[in-house]
Amino acid sequence: MTLARIGVFDSGVGGLTVLKAIAEQLPAHYLYFGDTARLPYGTKSAETVARYAIGAARFLEAQNIDLLVVACNTATALALPLIKEATHVPVVGVVEPGAAMAAEVSKKRAAIVIATEATISSHAYRDALQQHGLKAYEKACPLFVPLVEEGWTDHPVTEQVARIYLDEAMAQEPDQADVLVLACTHYPLLTPLLRRVVPEPMQIVDSAESTAGVVRKMLGEKSDCDLERREVAPVTERSRRTPIAAKLSPAEHRTFRFYATDSVEKFKRLAARFLGRQVDHVEHVDLGG
Amino acid sequence: MTLARIGVFDSGVGGLTVLKAIAEQLPAHYLYFGDTARLPYGTKSAETVARYAIGAARFLEAQNIDLLVVACNTATALALPLIKEATHVPVVGVVEPGAAMAAEVSKKRAAIVIATEATISSHAYRDALQQHGLKAYEKACPLFVPLVEEGWTDHPVTEQVARIYLDEAMAQEPDQADVLVLACTHYPLLTPLLRRVVPEPMQIVDSAESTAGVVRKMLGEKSDCDLERREVAPVTERSRRTPIAAKLSPAEHRTFRFYATDSVEKFKRLAARFLGRQVDHVEHVDLGG
Repeated sequence: MTLARIGVFDSGVGGLTVLKAIAEQLPAHYLYFGDTARLPYGTKSAETVARYAIGAARFLEAQNIDLLVVACNTATALALPLIKEATHVPVVGVVEPGAAMAAEVSKKRAAIVIATEATISSHAYRDALQQHGLKAYEKACPLFVPLVEEGWTDHPVTEQVARIYLDEAMAQEPDQADVLVLACTHYPLLTPLLRRVVPEPMQIVDSAESTAGVVRKMLGEKSDCDLERREVAPVTERSRRTPIAAKLSPAEHRTFRFYATDSVEKFKRLAARFLGRQVDHVEHVDLGG
Repeated sequence: MTLARIGVFDSGVGGLTVLKAIAEQLPAHYLYFGDTARLPYGTKSAETVARYAIGAARFLEAQNIDLLVVACNTATALALPLIKEATHVPVVGVVEPGAAMAAEVSKKRAAIVIATEATISSHAYRDALQQHGLKAYEKACPLFVPLVEEGWTDHPVTEQVARIYLDEAMAQEPDQADVLVLACTHYPLLTPLLRRVVPEPMQIVDSAESTAGVVRKMLGEKSDCDLERREVAPVTERSRRTPIAAKLSPAEHRTFRFYATDSVEKFKRLAARFLGRQVDHVEHVDLGG
């Protein structure tokens, strides 16, 4: 039985929260690419983010992946159509799954979206939520990523910053929203702290779980004739006609490869915090930037 | 009379504090390069910072500059020798001038150095201060740059963060240091707030003023035969033998050109805050990263 090769890409380590959620649902070969030499994407322009994201996507495609997960809200929000155009494998972003989950849990049909400056400016979540009939109140929270990377995930300063940001978000339309969408892969590490800051009835959702569900569905439903052609192993008539999902067996091991464009040591150190497990080997990649 | 062409380079807009200090002392043609598509440098590895810095230096060199100012503490700390090797014009960094100024004002012969993670890890300031007979207590302050960029230069959260960082710095050796070195070009915007946080007798120094002094001295003392060869204007026998400083007249206008690797709109918006004047035109440069 051949496992699918799933490429997961983020500007840094945040996308590991998405990788973790997918890997818990699917045995597969996982190739994770963190563009750490050029992070953060969240403060940069759409043109620059698109250029970086396409470089990363093409790198992973060259590693014979069957499916690409853009586990970065900024890259999804600003460049998903361009990434799809530039690659030949199916591509899954995190915005639509996050919006779909918000729509599933919201009773008041309104959500607060918190994210990086670039994701908020793109209004990608507002548009996706509107498609599901939800109104969106958007708020950029540029200090959350550096606070998480400083390790202050449960710190009084972070709580104070969260209160300031969320007060501003809720001032837009008090008592309307009943869902808080964490539209940045760093933010799930702040969930316990945010739970204390937002009013009791508000639900907190992030894209990791719902993205994992979409990936599973895509691998199960998609005919593998398109996916299969990039496999290194010889393609038999039988394997070409078997859906990828049918080839997955929980008994088989997941394997992980990690690539980073900046220091592999720093990647390892931060990765353990996001992935919840030790990362032993990371390969350095120079995309020429 | 021909004005000198001075290239000033930083990862972003922070180096504009250095540009401002130099321009106040010297009439010249200023070419400022902000590598905004790849900022921040302060969280990245020495190899990556060196690669980026050399790309920026070579870009400015191709614009016929007479002198290059590396107005970025991280790039100076991690890559000054490599930048000097890769270019053919005189190069001035900000670490040595900052250390020299600290040595000038310190009576207790000890200083606290605050900077980005990368600058602190390099121990470049510790080594430079030691050369001047000063002991250094170093402290990385990774949240200061995002706080300044959020515009929270006089905010209670920033004051709380500053108290935490400086308490940790001073706990290393209480009452020994009498100088606080702001070893990051963003930090001068925090000077009024830091003044409230550090004990009264402590002096606060940054590299901008002292770097400007070094630049003036270099242009005055250096024979221009080496500088002159890159000038676009025809080189006459007379101009070749006149030191650059002698060619500078306060009556002549300074001119400024700005280059950025990310969005020029964002650069303009942030630049006004650092430079204290409107920036009307910024050219976008793609270094292929």
